[in-house]
Amino acid sequence: MSDDASRKRARAGGRAGNKSRAGTAIIDQMPWRIPVNPDRPIEPLDAEGVQAVHKATMRILKEIGIEFLNPDAVAHLKRAGCVVNGTNVKMDEDFVMEMLSHAPESFTITPRNPERELIMGGKHMLFVNVSSPPNAWDLERGKRTGDFATFKEFMKLTQYFNCIHIAGGYPVEPVDIHASIRHLDCLYEKLTLTDKVVHAYSLGAERVEDVMEMVRIAGGLSHEEFEAKPRMYTNINSVSPLQHDYPMLDGAMRLAKRGQPVVITPFTLAGAMAPVTMSGAVTLSLAEGLAAVALLQFINPGCPVALGTFTSNVDMKSGAPAFGTPEYMRATQMTGQLVRHYKLPMRSSGTCAANVPDGQAMWETSNSLWAAVQSRTNMVYHAAGWLEGGLIASPEKFIMDCEVLQMIQRYFEDSVTATTPDDLAFDAIKGVGPGGHYFGCQHTQDRYATAFYAPIVSDWRNYEAWQQDGSIWTVERAHRIYKQIIAEFEAPEMNGDHQEELRQFVAKRKQEGGAPTDF
Amino acid sequence: MSDDASRKRARAGGRAGNKSRAGTAIIDQMPWRIPVNPDRPIEPLDAEGVQAVHKATMRILKEIGIEFLNPDAVAHLKRAGCVVNGTNVKMDEDFVMEMLSHAPESFTITPRNPERELIMGGKHMLFVNVSSPPNAWDLERGKRTGDFATFKEFMKLTQYFNCIHIAGGYPVEPVDIHASIRHLDCLYEKLTLTDKVVHAYSLGAERVEDVMEMVRIAGGLSHEEFEAKPRMYTNINSVSPLQHDYPMLDGAMRLAKRGQPVVITPFTLAGAMAPVTMSGAVTLSLAEGLAAVALLQFINPGCPVALGTFTSNVDMKSGAPAFGTPEYMRATQMTGQLVRHYKLPMRSSGTCAANVPDGQAMWETSNSLWAAVQSRTNMVYHAAGWLEGGLIASPEKFIMDCEVLQMIQRYFEDSVTATTPDDLAFDAIKGVGPGGHYFGCQHTQDRYATAFYAPIVSDWRNYEAWQQDGSIWTVERAHRIYKQIIAEFEAPEMNGDHQEELRQFVAKRKQEGGAPTDF
Repeated sequence: MSDDASRKRARAGGRAGNKSRAGTAIIDQMPWRIPVNPDRPIEPLDAEGVQAVHKATMRILKEIGIEFLNPDAVAHLKRAGCVVNGTNVKMDEDFVMEMLSHAPESFTITPRNPERELIMGGKHMLFVNVSSPPNAWDLERGKRTGDFATFKEFMKLTQYFNCIHIAGGYPVEPVDIHASIRHLDCLYEKLTLTDKVVHAYSLGAERVEDVMEMVRIAGGLSHEEFEAKPRMYTNINSVSPLQHDYPMLDGAMRLAKRGQPVVITPFTLAGAMAPVTMSGAVTLSLAEGLAAVALLQFINPGCPVALGTFTSNVDMKSGAPAFGTPEYMRATQMTGQLVRHYKLPMRSSGTCAANVPDGQAMWETSNSLWAAVQSRTNMVYHAAGWLEGGLIASPEKFIMDCEVLQMIQRYFEDSVTATTPDDLAFDAIKGVGPGGHYFGCQHTQDRYATAFYAPIVSDWRNYEAWQQDGSIWTVERAHRIYKQIIAEFEAPEMNGDHQEELRQFVAKRKQEGGAPTDF
Repeated sequence: MSDDASRKRARAGGRAGNKSRAGTAIIDQMPWRIPVNPDRPIEPLDAEGVQAVHKATMRILKEIGIEFLNPDAVAHLKRAGCVVNGTNVKMDEDFVMEMLSHAPESFTITPRNPERELIMGGKHMLFVNVSSPPNAWDLERGKRTGDFATFKEFMKLTQYFNCIHIAGGYPVEPVDIHASIRHLDCLYEKLTLTDKVVHAYSLGAERVEDVMEMVRIAGGLSHEEFEAKPRMYTNINSVSPLQHDYPMLDGAMRLAKRGQPVVITPFTLAGAMAPVTMSGAVTLSLAEGLAAVALLQFINPGCPVALGTFTSNVDMKSGAPAFGTPEYMRATQMTGQLVRHYKLPMRSSGTCAANVPDGQAMWETSNSLWAAVQSRTNMVYHAAGWLEGGLIASPEKFIMDCEVLQMIQRYFEDSVTATTPDDLAFDAIKGVGPGGHYFGCQHTQDRYATAFYAPIVSDWRNYEAWQQDGSIWTVERAHRIYKQIIAEFEAPEMNGDHQEELRQFVAKRKQEGGAPTDF
């Protein structure tokens, strides 16, 4: 391929070498971009339905109230005029809507590499790596407890793939590192192995403050520069039903005060922590989410927040959580309608219940990713690598999911559905004529390099060619790609001074004992 | 499960024993229904884009013309006032639009069992089994040439699954039966092993007439009753670019004259038989399709027709056809917009390029099935069982696809997104309170049996339970279900006299030598 063709491809996004950015070219992946979703969302609710969900949400907030298990939060809300009864806080529609009016519809997040700046909101769609599984699984080693070596492998995959925008939570929990210093080691690796936006767990004041400080140092920023705009983010989950716990609220408030984004994602599993009816589970989720948004907007009006959904259903036979189900898809779409009603950015996820990266894993994940598209989700958590309802991170699944993510990005490109005279190709159709073939014609030759999506792990050859090459099923092809990426990985550039300062900060904080582990 | 619970489930469609209809209850599948797609279609083209495609389509028909390689068809179109030049026929927009105005927007098809009557058009969505692969693949036997025993197995799967509405083309080509009598044996099995709508290949006058006669006999119908409404259908493909061949046109005209539906599906592979640009490939497909529709509406105004799409792209590296790609999805959606513009029912497909039923197979199939939903497709060909770009039929893939089809059916149910006060569940949320659990509450107990989709082949248990049970991947679970369905299959009821008459007809036609094989 000539340099010219390569540049052409990169622009059109069909295929792109992108060697300069990724460091290696094991696969011919698409270039870095922030995808823009042009589709009108799927809206299962009519205007009346949206109002019904909104009113029910407001009624929960006013008549039942939310438990804020954090005295500071309660104090803020008391000052705001909410009805406080111990930890129970009731807020009315006027207050909630006024607080919501402060929240920005979209905002940027700028990591240490400013070229990786993201836009969160509107029609933009961001993909986050798998976050928080305690275990890993791969084809060679099977299921095993997460460790630091595996954590680093996933960080490399996260950095390698241009379609992954955010280094979210820990892809696996590295239990071989003591919990008091785990966040220090993990964030050091995250901030040096990747140059993308990173996340902080809200698991205690020290951890949150350490991560903010490390992001500041890695970016070579003054405290003022750090606070001038969003540089990282946290994601908090409510303790459904109807509760926000101490550390999550603490972390959220710390970030909000410094203008750093907070994503609030209740986990309302219909039939378990939420009503068995999907609109009921969505309503509960919205009430919990909006209560936290109101708190943060009261503390720092205009601070960046987003609403997440993690509404799915259990399997009524076993009580096990199910993901990527029809109910999950519709809940995500309904939540999208309400989140747009509230003019907030939205988070959802790429999910499945499957234990291994097989057919079930991919139809469940496809269902959840297309639901993210259809709901106009802005931030897709667990977009690559998730298995077993979030209990397993798998590198093979990571590769396979990236194929789907790249296809979604390509699906968004205007050129696929363009109808200029050149696209409609009347002259080519006339020139080739009846019974002819288009492969050799000029119209094709001018476009073939960028005309179509080029796969990374899919095998499109016929059975015999595939068989002759060893009859390799998708999961094994993905395994080979994963191994090669890890073997050839080169870390992104980093300012040496910043890296040294980061190293010293970690050493100092370790010497001080890290963070308490009584959370 | 009590009888009461069973009935409740059947109504809501979550789970349904449905023993009475399917004969066996190996899996807890959803009941027979005609799915209704409530979603607004995804429309990548704006009004201007639709007009641009329409105008380009009309320009092809008027200025380039279509080759009709059938003298009868040419004679009809000459009589209709088209510009005829040998086999080339040019038609103008007024004529095409006038002919289109005769075509019904929807119609019914009634097979021998009137309870299996279908509606084709509007928001209705019908699923057809895999049709026409020359080969079969299963986990035990690998890839092999199609034979009659395998053909019968797929007929049993087709009948067994309530989510499959139509016994389309041969699921595998039974090459162990001589081509002259193949259609007689195949249709006999199709009409006795299933009671669903069947298809006739347009591969020569004798075959088409034999199939119509066999459908008439199987239904115990007079010739008048047969012609009184649609009883079966054919699907014809143009020979892209720009040609309709003799036998396809012959079959289509024979059916149209007797009021039987014709689905016209050009196969325009962008970069091979069609322009490399997707709107160009769609335009070519529409021109070929509309030309045939115009012919049939001129011959018998008001006869039932539908427009199919089979527009995808090749892999530019190998020239191999690719399916379920972003380009495929957008082409299907664009075609949907134009087919609705022409007020015709639409056909698309469930497709993949994968050689085995693994992850790739399921993300490609999911992409194509969701594109069918998003384009408001009425008839989904190859909805279950297709692999290797249509060269392989697989029973495991059939089972796996039926899971996705059932999920689509469930996704369509109003109850999933209902927002009545009962669904919004304020009282339950208040009753359970903060930190409580919904499993035991009355609101859940009243609904748990029907609240959620119940899977047939998905395993939603956690890894350890799955492992203890043998670590069975999806494809092997599907294999076991397939074997059990075949082992326990019971054919649907059939009137003994009709069956005997059918047997005699087959014997007589075989004695006469069947059909010529020089096609």
